This record gives sequence, structure tokens and C-alpha cells, in this order.
Amino acid sequence: MSTTSLPPSLMATLPGEHYTDPQVFALEQKRVFESMWFCTVRAADLPKPGAFRTVQVGTESILITRARDNSIRAFYNVCRHRGARICTEDSGEVKRAFQCPYHAWTYDLEGKLIAAPNLTKMPDLDRVEYGLVNVAVREWLGYVWVCLADEPPSFEDTVLGEVRTRLGDVASLDNYDVANLALGRRIVYDVKANWKLIVENFMECYHCATIHPELTEVLPEFADGYAAQYYVGHGALFGEDIQGFTVDGSEGLDRIPTISEDQDRRYYAITIKPQVFVNMVPDHVIIHRMFPLAVDRTVVECDWLYLPEVVASGKDISRSVELFHRVNEQDFDACERTQPSMSSRTYAKGGVLVPSEHHIGMFHDWVRGKLGE
Amino acid sequence: MSTTSLPPSLMATLPGEHYTDPQVFALEQKRVFESMWFCTVRAADLPKPGAFRTVQVGTESILITRARDNSIRAFYNVCRHRGARICTEDSGEVKRAFQCPYHAWTYDLEGKLIAAPNLTKMPDLDRVEYGLVNVAVREWLGYVWVCLADEPPSFEDTVLGEVRTRLGDVASLDNYDVANLALGRRIVYDVKANWKLIVENFMECYHCATIHPELTEVLPEFADGYAAQYYVGHGALFGEDIQGFTVDGSEGLDRIPTISEDQDRRYYAITIKPQVFVNMVPDHVIIHRMFPLAVDRTVVECDWLYLPEVVASGKDISRSVELFHRVNEQDFDACERTQPSMSSRTYAKGGVLVPSEHHIGMFHDWVRGKLGE
Amino acid sequence: MSTTSLPPSLMATLPGEHYTDPQVFALEQKRVFESMWFCTVRAADLPKPGAFRTVQVGTESILITRARDNSIRAFYNVCRHRGARICTEDSGEVKRAFQCPYHAWTYDLEGKLIAAPNLTKMPDLDRVEYGLVNVAVREWLGYVWVCLADEPPSFEDTVLGEVRTRLGDVASLDNYDVANLALGRRIVYDVKANWKLIVENFMECYHCATIHPELTEVLPEFADGYAAQYYVGHGALFGEDIQGFTVDGSEGLDRIPTISEDQDRRYYAITIKPQVFVNMVPDHVIIHRMFPLAVDRTVVECDWLYLPEVVASGKDISRSVELFHRVNEQDFDACERTQPSMSSRTYAKGGVLVPSEHHIGMFHDWVRGKLGE
Repeated sequence: MSTTSLPPSLMATLPGEHYTDPQVFALEQKRVFESMWFCTVRAADLPKPGAFRTVQVGTESILITRARDNSIRAFYNVCRHRGARICTEDSGEVKRAFQCPYHAWTYDLEGKLIAAPNLTKMPDLDRVEYGLVNVAVREWLGYVWVCLADEPPSFEDTVLGEVRTRLGDVASLDNYDVANLALGRRIVYDVKANWKLIVENFMECYHCATIHPELTEVLPEFADGYAAQYYVGHGALFGEDIQGFTVDGSEGLDRIPTISEDQDRRYYAITIKPQVFVNMVPDHVIIHRMFPLAVDRTVVECDWLYLPEVVASGKDISRSVELFHRVNEQDFDACERTQPSMSSRTYAKGGVLVPSEHHIGMFHDWVRGKLGE
Repeated sequence: MSTTSLPPSLMATLPGEHYTDPQVFALEQKRVFESMWFCTVRAADLPKPGAFRTVQVGTESILITRARDNSIRAFYNVCRHRGARICTEDSGEVKRAFQCPYHAWTYDLEGKLIAAPNLTKMPDLDRVEYGLVNVAVREWLGYVWVCLADEPPSFEDTVLGEVRTRLGDVASLDNYDVANLALGRRIVYDVKANWKLIVENFMECYHCATIHPELTEVLPEFADGYAAQYYVGHGALFGEDIQGFTVDGSEGLDRIPTISEDQDRRYYAITIKPQVFVNMVPDHVIIHRMFPLAVDRTVVECDWLYLPEVVASGKDISRSVELFHRVNEQDFDACERTQPSMSSRTYAKGGVLVPSEHHIGMFHDWVRGKLGE
Repeated sequence: MSTTSLPPSLMATLPGEHYTDPQVFALEQKRVFESMWFCTVRAADLPKPGAFRTVQVGTESILITRARDNSIRAFYNVCRHRGARICTEDSGEVKRAFQCPYHAWTYDLEGKLIAAPNLTKMPDLDRVEYGLVNVAVREWLGYVWVCLADEPPSFEDTVLGEVRTRLGDVASLDNYDVANLALGRRIVYDVKANWKLIVENFMECYHCATIHPELTEVLPEFADGYAAQYYVGHGALFGEDIQGFTVDGSEGLDRIPTISEDQDRRYYAITIKPQVFVNMVPDHVIIHRMFPLAVDRTVVECDWLYLPEVVASGKDISRSVELFHRVNEQDFDACERTQPSMSSRTYAKGGVLVPSEHHIGMFHDWVRGKLGE
């Protein structure tokens, strides 16, 4: 099982401990999730100033809200006084300020400290310096991306760079106008597997013929084992008899009018490292956000986005949602049955990648780089 | 957030890891809870010889009982033969001896080994040396205090010293005759927070106006944010319209006749490090005992003690109990919402103490000293 | 409590940390359970080719099956491709091959890789080298014993050696024809104690008078505290009024015809380190297999084996089973009340062994040897 003796058809994966060692995960939290741009919530979930959401980014609880000027802000969800959580709910709404429920230190929607008991007797206490600690924010695709790094990497180079690598350009994705689509359905999956197993699963289609009967019916070329992501710019073509990207191949919803003719009747997928998957079909876009919570547990939130008029009309989207919901369940089951073997001595040097999976090796190189290996 | 740049109004707290690191907690168990006098059970809960209670002190299970001469004894709850727990119940009663249920090694109420199968064939086995391992015991305030140290520190200097530091003398506490009060109510709280957060919370009243509406109604000066414990000897005065220390300010129970006139209509509080709080009002005394079980979990047993005739009469104490029961719930909620932030990078160097909290810094210095920092 | 000062009657046990430290347990998993012959399943539980069972051996999931030639095979339950568990069920049956449910890599019942998507395009991939990883197998007493060591120790010297040490020869055990007995009852116990406490408990009878009233009724000499295992070749004699090895001393089942006259009306017990106990009485054999899952948790599977005609006849075996089932429950209760004390400072240097337990010291020496102490 030594990697040096592998036949040319095979490449080694990461060693098993990368999927089981809490110290590796702790390092990933610092160097990956708390250092890179991380996709948190849908901006539309913050409909007005004072609406807020709290999310876990790496080891940190982050408070995301909309300020009075309608811009989105993100803060560490930690009072600057004695550390109490400012908000303990997943979501909610305040009128004009966040007040810590312990000692009533009060921060405006921009995070500035505006009131506290006896604050006037502490004139040496700067209201901005002792405001909530800011986190960098970017809105894109209708989502709020945050970065906990002191000096965030370039969003253009990293996040958009992933899109260019996959599609050849960002314009191809812009065609789908994702920011202006509406949420048709959101399903949350609690997966008992390391986040990297989920990424690897999403990156290859060698498993498609085995576990995704509905998907390969819609996208016949997937039965060959080559994922759309294998070829730059390629989208998998719908089968001849397929009317739409639905669980039974029946007609889908209204087509997004701004996509190109080339993009019709095709499925495209993009992995935006470390935690986002984008899936585009003519009538909707599916976005996965992963929240890695432990070395062997990852919560995945999956959004199905449609034209606003489709969602407003109340049209039946159930067969449309059902296709990828089944794909998700099939994939996460596979990841969960893989996780326990990662600690086996037979996996100490990792498993193997077949030719149609070799591109996963680039993901492994990227992980190793982040870990400083 | 560096401590050197704090404005004069602020002092730094302990760094966050002091509240989250299991190794810090393990050290505290050894150097604090297993080295200092630790308040365990109420002596009256052992009504006669052979009655016993088992309690967790640091990492150890301790067996506390009343011997034939009515004195109280404490032992490690571990058979000297193969280590089985002597008693697994929280409380109970034996007639004349403790018999290990594994191999029937039998110890009298003073801990001496008095019987075992084939013991007569082992004449070289000393009955005292192979008796239950003794733990130092002191009775005070009607409670059994134990010390697991090989050489216990002076009870006078440490436990009574805390009272002197707070009240100026011990006599002021003696006035309440706590040992002879009767238990009116006991409530046990399972708090998901580090024990030091609970101590810090008890030591300051900067939070009182925010989270304790009923208490500040009864003790108006608490609304200013200064805890009774801030001034030596000071007790907080009841509000003018307040008839008693009850949830609605209505009349309390019969006054303890031995308190001084100065002590009437006042609330006093003492923190006896590391795990006891004493609260005195004219008609009752409230005692908190903390049992720290994990770095993020502390069980708190709270006793409401009244004149024996009050308890015997069956008088309604519910409004009396309800006031501090609400205070407890309000405080422990605050501690529980603070605990999760202790691991945040924004708390890596700790939070800040405002002027009315600066005395908590002495507690932090004391903790650092115990940890050898 | 220092070991040097023990009176001659007493010997020290292992220090408490041997029963509580996860690192000691991890070392035991590697050097004991994954290095020695380990008894897994009853061969009769694999009635035909393709029937399989999965078991935990040390840290590994092992897949045990019957091949087409009726021989029994064992493999790591890990796909050679990307590591998914081949079988997640405890037991089941395949027709002719094991197919990994993730990417459909397919292995025959001998473990050889026989099919996979695009396998023909990977001619450099050897079907045997990339077959399931084999584990050494031996059948004995009707059980499947496996060894995960690269070079398994001699079965004769280790497993059979234990029998010789205890009985003087292996023939005495052969008399019971255990391989051809039939399973009358299987009971699984989930014991919250370290595996070594269970071994020590089984090795001594000093506790018998205290916790096993039914057993000492049947075997009066056990009331003296000396286990059958104390003397080479000795079997404990049934009491005079005892008709059979049953909970009430009533008549047992049909006697195994091949046992010697000496073996009639006697109980013999063998500890086969590290995880098997064999109990022989004239009409049945009881086999315990331990599966240590954590430093403080051990699953014990106990089989009651009778003559096939007894099991086939449907005769009432309940009083027969009930005797040792009660013994098991009594013993495991004792182990569970001992486990928590292993972390006490009073057990830091261990407990003590009385003369009738001194032979347990050999077990402790053996453990220390395995741990390299």
C-alpha cells in the first residue's frame, strides 16, 4: 500500500488521519475556514435594518445584520465587556441596537458602543475601539460572504478565481443572475462525515452510475463516470427524452431568461473552495453551503433558487427539488459510510483515485498547502 | 485588545482559555478543590450514626457519615482491596458498618477494617492502615467542610478569613446562628458554565439593573451597579416600601432574634472561595455550594435556611424563596450565555472589568496564584 | 500505599491509570487485540457461502464470510478504492460477491477484485493486490479466530497454550467436542468497565461467597474463595444434593457423552487471554467473548452451547441458562462499581490482592509485558 508503488492508473488520496484527527481539523478551522472567504447566509434572509442571523464560521459565532444604510455588517457575536453572546438565537430582529443581555452594553447596527451603565463615568473608553469586533463582508450571488482574516485575501482572485477555473469566465455564471433569484426551498442536512469527503464526492462522478439512478437518467453522460467539473467550461447535456431537471425528467419551471443558448438543457457545477457548491440548470440554481462543525460532522444547507415570479406564483416545484434532494441524500449516505474507515490501518496512507478522479488530487494538494505540509 | 493598552477605567479579566481548557480545570481540581476546605453537605442531613451522603470533591467521590459518637467522618469512597465504590447512592443509612458489595471487606463507622473473608489468615494486615482513607472534616455553619490535602490549610485563616475580609469580623455572621437554622428549601441547578464565571457573577452587581428587576426593587442601591461585596462590612439596605426580602417586597418570615439592629433590613453577601456563597437577610440565610464537575459545567446546590420554628410551623415561604430563586436563574442564564464565547479569538486575552467590577481582579490574581502563574 | 511496604499477604494490582487512560487502551488495542488471536463469531453463524458477519477487532471493522469452498475468510471491511465500508450491517448474506455501494468496486468471496466501473481501462491494476485486505483466520471450538498481525503468533503456543496451562492438556477440553455443540442461547452484555477488570473478576473466586449465592450453592467449594483456575487441572465439584448446573440445582440437560468420568459433576473454567472465557460442565459449555470498545466499555457476548439434539428437541434450558446469566450480571455489576474508583488518588498505585487472588498478578505481569513496561 505504499504510494510509491501505485500503478500509473492510480493516485493516492490524503492519508486517513486527515479525516479523523481533531488537530488537523483545528488547523483547518484556523487556516481555511477562519482565513478564507466563507459563505454564510442569504442576503434576502435579512430583509431590513436590524434583522440578524448568527452563524458558526470555524470556531467562531458570527452575528450578521443589516445596518440603517441597508448595507450588511458582520461582527463577532461577543460582548466586548465580559464576553456574553450578544444574540443566542439563529435569527431575529432588533429595532435600532444590539443590547448585551448581561450588563446592557449597547451597540448600534454598525457595531459602535453607544450605551452602557455608568458609561459616562468612563470617558477614556473609546466607543469605536470597544465596539463589536468587525468582520469583513462581501455580497455576491445574493449571499453574505465573510472573512475572519485580519487581511482578507482577494475575493476576485479566490472566490471568483474558482469560477473562472471551472467555467473559463465569470460571465457564464452571471447569466443566471443568481443574486436576484428567490428561495424556493431550503433543506438542511446534518452529515456525520468530514467536510473533505463531501467536497471529494461532489468533485467526481465515478460514483454516479452506482448511487444516482435519477440523476444519470437526466444526465446520461454522467453514467460514464466523468463529472462535469472534469472539463473546463463543460456542462452535462440533458438526455434526449428529458424535458427538465426534475426527478422524473418532466418539465421544469420557467427558464431564467438571461442564460445563453449554450447553457440551455445543461447542468453545470462549480466547487468554490472551501465550502460552497454551485449547481446551474436552465430554470434554477442550487447552492450548497457547508458548515464544518467537527472532524466528523458537517452541516450542509442547500438552497433551491428560482425566478422570483416562479416562487411568487406558488407553482409546484416539488419534482424539481426532489431530484437534487435525492442526490444529496445518496451522496451524504456514501460519505457517512466512508468516514468510519478513515481510521483503519488499511487507509493509513489513504485510498486511490482512478483516472476520472485524478483532478481531486489538486484539491488534496491545495489542502496540504493550507496545512503547511 | 492587548492588556497594556487598556484605558485606566478598565482592567483585563482572565484570558478565555482559563474557562475552556480542560487542563486548566484539571489543575484547579488538584490545587483548589482538592487542596482547600470544601463545603459538602448539611450536617442535619446526617441525622444519626450510620446515615451517609456521597459527594464529588474535585475528582474524588467522598463518603460522609456520622460515627457512633455522633461525630462526622469523611472517607474516600473506595474499598482498600480492589477499589469498588463502597456506596453508590447519593444518600442512605447503614446500621453499624460499611460493607463493600464486591468482596465483603467491612469497615466500621470510623473507617477501620473490621471484617473480610479469610481476614484471620492475613494477620499481617493492619486494620487501621487498611481502613478507609480518612479525609479531614470540620463542621461550621451547620455544614460539613472537608479537605483532601495531606496537610489542610488553617480553617481559621482561609474560610473564616474570607468572612473577616468581607464583614470585618466573624461575629457579624455568628449573629445569624446559621448552624441552628433549619432547611426550608433546597434547589439544585445544573449550570453549563465554568465555576469562575459563577463566582465573578456573584461578586459584582453591575449586572443587577439589567437582569435582576425583583432584586433591585428590594435593594434599590443595587441599581447603581455596586455590589454589597464592594465595601467591607456594608449590607445593602431594603427599599423604603419594602416589608421583607421576598419576590414582591411583602412581609418575610420571623426575624432571627440574635442579629444586631444594624443588620435589620439589610442584605449581606460573602464569597467564601472557592465554592461557597453566603447571603444573609434578617429572616433567613441562603447558602450556595458549587460542585464544579467539568470545565464548562457546575452543579450549584442552594439552601434557604430559616428559624426552626418557622420551618416547623409550615408557614408559606414561597415568596421568600422565589426572590433568590429568580436571581439564581437570571445569573446562571447569564453565565451560560457567556461560557461559549470564552473560546473566541476576541476573548483570547480576556474581557474587561469596569470600575465597579475591579475587585474581581483580586479573584483573578488569587486564581493565577493557585495555578502557579 | 507504596508497594514496597505491603505486608506479605498482599500483592499490588496494576495502578489505576491502566484502567482509565485512553492512551493505555490505545496501546492495548494495537499490542493486544490487533496483535493476538482474537475470537470473533461462531462458525455456525455463517451457514453457507456468502453469509457474512462484521465485528470490531481493536480499532478495526472486520468482515468475516464463508467462501465458495466453504472455508472461512476474513477481510478488513474497507473498500480499496476510497475506503467506504463494504458492509455496514452486523450480519447478512451476499450471493457471489461483495460490491462496495459507493463506486461499485466488486470483490469475490475470496476478496479478489473482480469488477469496477472502467476497470478494463486500468490494466495496470492488479486484481489480487487491490483485493480486500486479508486477515489470518483459524477455526477452533467452532469459533472463527482472526489475527490482524502481519505475522500472527503461533496459535498452538498462545491459544492452546492457555488451555494447557490451565488444564494440563488440550485433550481434556477436546472431550467436550465444543465445535459440534449447538447454540442454545446467546446474551450480549454492555459493560461500563475496562476489559481487565472483567478478566480479573473471572480469574478469582474471593468474591463468590459475597455476590454469587446461586453459584456457591451449586459449587460449595467456591464459598472458600478459591477459584477453579487457582489449581492446574482442578474442576470444582458439584454439591452433594446438586443434580445439575442450574440456577436451582435441579437436573440439567443431556450429558456430553465424550467427557471423562473425572469431568462429570465438575465445573472447569479457562481464561484464554486476552478476551475469551471457557466454562465447561457435563451438559454444556459457556463461552464468553469480550469486545473491548473503550477504556471504560466492553461488550461481552456469552454463548450457552448444548448437544445439538438437546437444542433441536426444544427442551427447556432456561434454568440452565439462568445460573450463569445471574453470575454474569452479578460480576458485571461489580466491575461497573469498581471502574469509577480507578481514577481515585487512593488507587493511583493500585489496590491489593489477597492470597487467593495472587495468581492475578501473573495477568498483570503479562499486561505490563505487552505494554512494554
